[in-house]
Amino acid sequence: MRIDKRKNDQLRKITIHTHFLKNAHGSCLIEMGDTKVVCSASVEAKVPPFCKLEEKGWVTAEYGMLPASCSERIAREASKGKLSGRTQEIQRLIGRSLRSIVDLKKLKDRTIWLDADVIQGDGGTRTASITGCYIALEQAVQKLLIEGIITENPILDSVAAVSVGVVGGMPVLDLCYAEDSKAEVDMNVVMTGSGKLVEVQGTAEGKPFTELTLQKMLQLAKQGIRKLTAIQKKYVQS
Amino acid sequence: MRIDKRKNDQLRKITIHTHFLKNAHGSCLIEMGDTKVVCSASVEAKVPPFCKLEEKGWVTAEYGMLPASCSERIAREASKGKLSGRTQEIQRLIGRSLRSIVDLKKLKDRTIWLDADVIQGDGGTRTASITGCYIALEQAVQKLLIEGIITENPILDSVAAVSVGVVGGMPVLDLCYAEDSKAEVDMNVVMTGSGKLVEVQGTAEGKPFTELTLQKMLQLAKQGIRKLTAIQKKYVQS
Amino acid sequence: MRIDKRKNDQLRKITIHTHFLKNAHGSCLIEMGDTKVVCSASVEAKVPPFCKLEEKGWVTAEYGMLPASCSERIAREASKGKLSGRTQEIQRLIGRSLRSIVDLKKLKDRTIWLDADVIQGDGGTRTASITGCYIALEQAVQKLLIEGIITENPILDSVAAVSVGVVGGMPVLDLCYAEDSKAEVDMNVVMTGSGKLVEVQGTAEGKPFTELTLQKMLQLAKQGIRKLTAIQKKYVQS
Amino acid sequence: MRIDKRKNDQLRKITIHTHFLKNAHGSCLIEMGDTKVVCSASVEAKVPPFCKLEEKGWVTAEYGMLPASCSERIAREASKGKLSGRTQEIQRLIGRSLRSIVDLKKLKDRTIWLDADVIQGDGGTRTASITGCYIALEQAVQKLLIEGIITENPILDSVAAVSVGVVGGMPVLDLCYAEDSKAEVDMNVVMTGSGKLVEVQGTAEGKPFTELTLQKMLQLAKQGIRKLTAIQKKYVQS
Amino acid sequence: MRIDKRKNDQLRKITIHTHFLKNAHGSCLIEMGDTKVVCSASVEAKVPPFCKLEEKGWVTAEYGMLPASCSERIAREASKGKLSGRTQEIQRLIGRSLRSIVDLKKLKDRTIWLDADVIQGDGGTRTASITGCYIALEQAVQKLLIEGIITENPILDSVAAVSVGVVGGMPVLDLCYAEDSKAEVDMNVVMTGSGKLVEVQGTAEGKPFTELTLQKMLQLAKQGIRKLTAIQKKYVQS
Amino acid sequence: MRIDKRKNDQLRKITIHTHFLKNAHGSCLIEMGDTKVVCSASVEAKVPPFCKLEEKGWVTAEYGMLPASCSERIAREASKGKLSGRTQEIQRLIGRSLRSIVDLKKLKDRTIWLDADVIQGDGGTRTASITGCYIALEQAVQKLLIEGIITENPILDSVAAVSVGVVGGMPVLDLCYAEDSKAEVDMNVVMTGSGKLVEVQGTAEGKPFTELTLQKMLQLAKQGIRKLTAIQKKYVQS
Repeated sequence: MRIDKRKNDQLRKITIHTHFLKNAHGSCLIEMGDTKVVCSASVEAKVPPFCKLEEKGWVTAEYGMLPASCSERIAREASKGKLSGRTQEIQRLIGRSLRSIVDLKKLKDRTIWLDADVIQGDGGTRTASITGCYIALEQAVQKLLIEGIITENPILDSVAAVSVGVVGGMPVLDLCYAEDSKAEVDMNVVMTGSGKLVEVQGTAEGKPFTELTLQKMLQLAKQGIRKLTAIQKKYVQS
Repeated sequence: MRIDKRKNDQLRKITIHTHFLKNAHGSCLIEMGDTKVVCSASVEAKVPPFCKLEEKGWVTAEYGMLPASCSERIAREASKGKLSGRTQEIQRLIGRSLRSIVDLKKLKDRTIWLDADVIQGDGGTRTASITGCYIALEQAVQKLLIEGIITENPILDSVAAVSVGVVGGMPVLDLCYAEDSKAEVDMNVVMTGSGKLVEVQGTAEGKPFTELTLQKMLQLAKQGIRKLTAIQKKYVQS
Repeated sequence: MRIDKRKNDQLRKITIHTHFLKNAHGSCLIEMGDTKVVCSASVEAKVPPFCKLEEKGWVTAEYGMLPASCSERIAREASKGKLSGRTQEIQRLIGRSLRSIVDLKKLKDRTIWLDADVIQGDGGTRTASITGCYIALEQAVQKLLIEGIITENPILDSVAAVSVGVVGGMPVLDLCYAEDSKAEVDMNVVMTGSGKLVEVQGTAEGKPFTELTLQKMLQLAKQGIRKLTAIQKKYVQS
Repeated sequence: MRIDKRKNDQLRKITIHTHFLKNAHGSCLIEMGDTKVVCSASVEAKVPPFCKLEEKGWVTAEYGMLPASCSERIAREASKGKLSGRTQEIQRLIGRSLRSIVDLKKLKDRTIWLDADVIQGDGGTRTASITGCYIALEQAVQKLLIEGIITENPILDSVAAVSVGVVGGMPVLDLCYAEDSKAEVDMNVVMTGSGKLVEVQGTAEGKPFTELTLQKMLQLAKQGIRKLTAIQKKYVQS
Repeated sequence: MRIDKRKNDQLRKITIHTHFLKNAHGSCLIEMGDTKVVCSASVEAKVPPFCKLEEKGWVTAEYGMLPASCSERIAREASKGKLSGRTQEIQRLIGRSLRSIVDLKKLKDRTIWLDADVIQGDGGTRTASITGCYIALEQAVQKLLIEGIITENPILDSVAAVSVGVVGGMPVLDLCYAEDSKAEVDMNVVMTGSGKLVEVQGTAEGKPFTELTLQKMLQLAKQGIRKLTAIQKKYVQS
Repeated sequence: MRIDKRKNDQLRKITIHTHFLKNAHGSCLIEMGDTKVVCSASVEAKVPPFCKLEEKGWVTAEYGMLPASCSERIAREASKGKLSGRTQEIQRLIGRSLRSIVDLKKLKDRTIWLDADVIQGDGGTRTASITGCYIALEQAVQKLLIEGIITENPILDSVAAVSVGVVGGMPVLDLCYAEDSKAEVDMNVVMTGSGKLVEVQGTAEGKPFTELTLQKMLQLAKQGIRKLTAIQKKYVQS
């Protein structure tokens, strides 16, 4: 039995508030259980130098946590004057994941900044960020199409992510923090709406795991992402 | 006539959601018009060295803005690796303002961190932060009293803040961003519930102003803060 | 009775050595009692990007303290690798104050850097910096006019500043460090030669203060600045 | 046919020079084709605070590249003043991988620093670092045992790593840089000598990949690591 | 003929104002021609960790330049957030030079911070700093002796420094900036009052120089330092 | 008798492996006894702004040490986020030394980056870096000539460096770390193949030294560099 009574293959309750911010080109507040992340997409009318050469646009991501989002207050990275390794790893992951479903050529000379800011954290913040940023990205792209800044939709597929892991010897889906902190294996899977893999990152926390465990976690993740994809569809006009 | 049809001495609509965060010792989401700030109070069981010597507690504040909170995306200070002068000025102001109503001796060996994070900004973020942080502080102190960590209430008074300014030659209360960006004079006033001044910061944006203008702005601020104090009372158990 | 026998409305002895530095476009050493600040104005033949767009010049300020200027050696900010919040607040204040009396359009494509470096500090370093930088600025502008780089004098008024405060329950003018360190209220006032306000920054150090106290401090400040303005005139050719 | 004529499941030539450095507790130079990494293990007689509480030792890793190790000179991170996100990701991966085979309790109050410095890079530097650091770690642990500083061997298993990927539609083992730069999928696998998984990190570079591709890459990686494990054994006395 | 009409072996005019700062334990303003440096010595009642182990005191130096000290305004290192290589080289040189004449054991558990701040620079600022810091150091040590904090004088000798160089093919003493900027060879010599060498740093600016040139410069430096030593004596009570 | 049985005027065993790196334009591994430094020269097709104005090329150097190169692991400067004063001093010295033998005009619009990375340190790393970087520089220049990027050889002379010092009262050549750490005087001499001086940096470590000692050290250095020059010739095609 899981700590919050869920079945092993059950996601937490998901709530999505779209158009959460007045100013961003796209935004939502995504809640997966007690994890709450503000996701936004902001369009900038320039691209990094290497994109200029290749005549393409860019999609990049940044990630942050409010100091009081976790059970212990976490020091502000702005005050410490540098990003932790964890933050950098996460924002690189979000950026790569979202770029995997975008045809950057069609974005022309625009950069889309995806920001994921954790208001409250209870495990799975990076996967919720990816799932939410996709919705913000869709809104921003719709706006660019409507404004005529781009003429073809550069989004090729949807993308969502979920965590899986092994807790107390059992593979489980969508770990909350209490599970995550005692998991033996921790894995994040990013997948497209059409069922292709974008990222698979499995890590032995305590001790190494077998290939069979890997396979079981993969199956759980696939099921979870299929449900997330269905939910995303409701909030995005195609 | 003001841009949003308010009278010169009229505050924007205020909404306060208390206990906004699950983990912080105290928290609220304060909205003044389109300005939305998450305020939280986190208790830490240690104090800075100079407080140890004087056997007192400490109250300090930090302030941040989400990148997509404003009309143009603002770069993350964590990514730039340093706090802007503006941010430091604001967090020093919030900290000083809240300390002015706390008897630090009674806080014993605890530090209370106040965090103000702007989710959406439309002018007056620093004053909304002060008004909201007071509520978060009250909650945190109640918790410390209930847990028996402190035995006497260290809070001596309430505190709230508001901006006033001169726009188009007219003194007005509680400027929104559209007003703020073209104001000739900009002033922030911090006052206690008992009507004492904590901070008065008036700045000529365009050109110097007369003493008469200063006096008019002060009166507007006093009225505004009286209303804010009444609202704060509803959310704080005395 | 004040610690240095002055009357409540009495300034400390002021000494100004103009043209203190060989290389700067303008400079002076200003002494207010034991507070000694080297003020200089350096002209640079370029402006920040936002000034280029608006076709105007720029005036900006930086502030520093020699490590041995105070009773305890203070660590160099250059060695610590960052400016303290206090330093940034002060240099923003000096910059704003001096810009308030300059028609930037007439400065054309020049930036004037004002540097205030405290050789010895005994309270009121930021206000002495403003009073002294005005003199350095005047010299630099005269030089630009003589050299024909600008054709119209961009300086609209003079500007000076003074501190006031409440010490032992009494409002007093121009606090020395011994007074400043035990003041209940601390206020800096920046005013033009024509008697207009540029900045009013009043802070409750210990406990909040009444509006009546604010008014008394304002009157003291006005008298003090009137005297400073008269002294400045002697050192500036109009 | 691969660019360097290897078969799809063929590793590059591996050369290991053990005891490469005079001063480190353990060290080797590992070469996989043209990729050359100096790996070392240095013992420090203290542990981070959180280890003190749990009465255990620590293993951590740092990674760097010589400026001239790659085809284009890369700027020194020491000169830029900060570690790139890539470097931090890699050193976190190396540290986690090596900790997965160590019983930290038996390391007592010692920290082992693993340093991987790329002298020449031609793809697969992070996996070569893990494979080489294991050898350096073994040497350092042997030394600690001989010196009697620890009494039980804390190493539970061996560990090695390899990259796999999809190039031109074909899953291949141990990519050189020329392959890596045009790979459609890139995956790093870390495995113990007993065949358990420690890390699986697969990333779609160009476009998302199928689960079948993931399975094929996993099989290639398993075969490759089995060979690496056999080679490591020769250099480590059991 | 030299640019300022001096003979090749002639020092610039030297002026020393001792006890220049009210708060420092020792201080002077040293002027060598137009080069003006504020030198101070501040005593701190603690030592770095490695001195604690060896039960000795410490002498260290820091160096800075006011932004307007040179013909072009130089950016503040505090604003840039780091010390230039030049600054670090100079402060290491000043520190080493002064330590060479101090018996650190007799300084007990005190650190003496020497600060050299260039108010105006016209060549030879590092050598003037050494010559002036010796005077500040002497004052600070006298104070420590008088206060009974140390019981034996730790100063073993005096120390002074001068620059020499080759300008227009001629070896010259004590270069001003105009000479320095076109010198073919630049050398700084630090010597004790008893005629021993502390530092010799000769650098070919344009092209390499002969050993004979080195010898001639050494002789010039020796003569110059002998004069500086005589001047220092007047300001220091032995 | 010296610690490693060498005569006072005897160099340590020198080994040079040229073309040590596949990618750099020039490179070697230089070993002087147990000191091992990878030296490389990388050509970049741009120059710093001040060189553009003067229509010349540039030669600059950077220096680093592997963490495990010394008897105690040294923390990575990249992790600490800044270069130590020692590192900056050394890289400035290497850069100046190599520039002294290059006609920058003939380098046209190219920058040559010299990197010296200490794999193992046993004293004299900065002098070995200079001696080795000369060889790397020669290779890079040959390549530029062959490729027709420059048409005239900009190298005017060879350059080499050696340390001398006083150990146990005796002047000795080429100190190893055990000697260096107890030397009374430490001196680095940089000289051209034609016997001209480029840099002379002598420092009293413990106590000041006589001019006679300086002369003896200079003679030792001259002999040592003559031998190094002969060795360099073997590895460089003229």
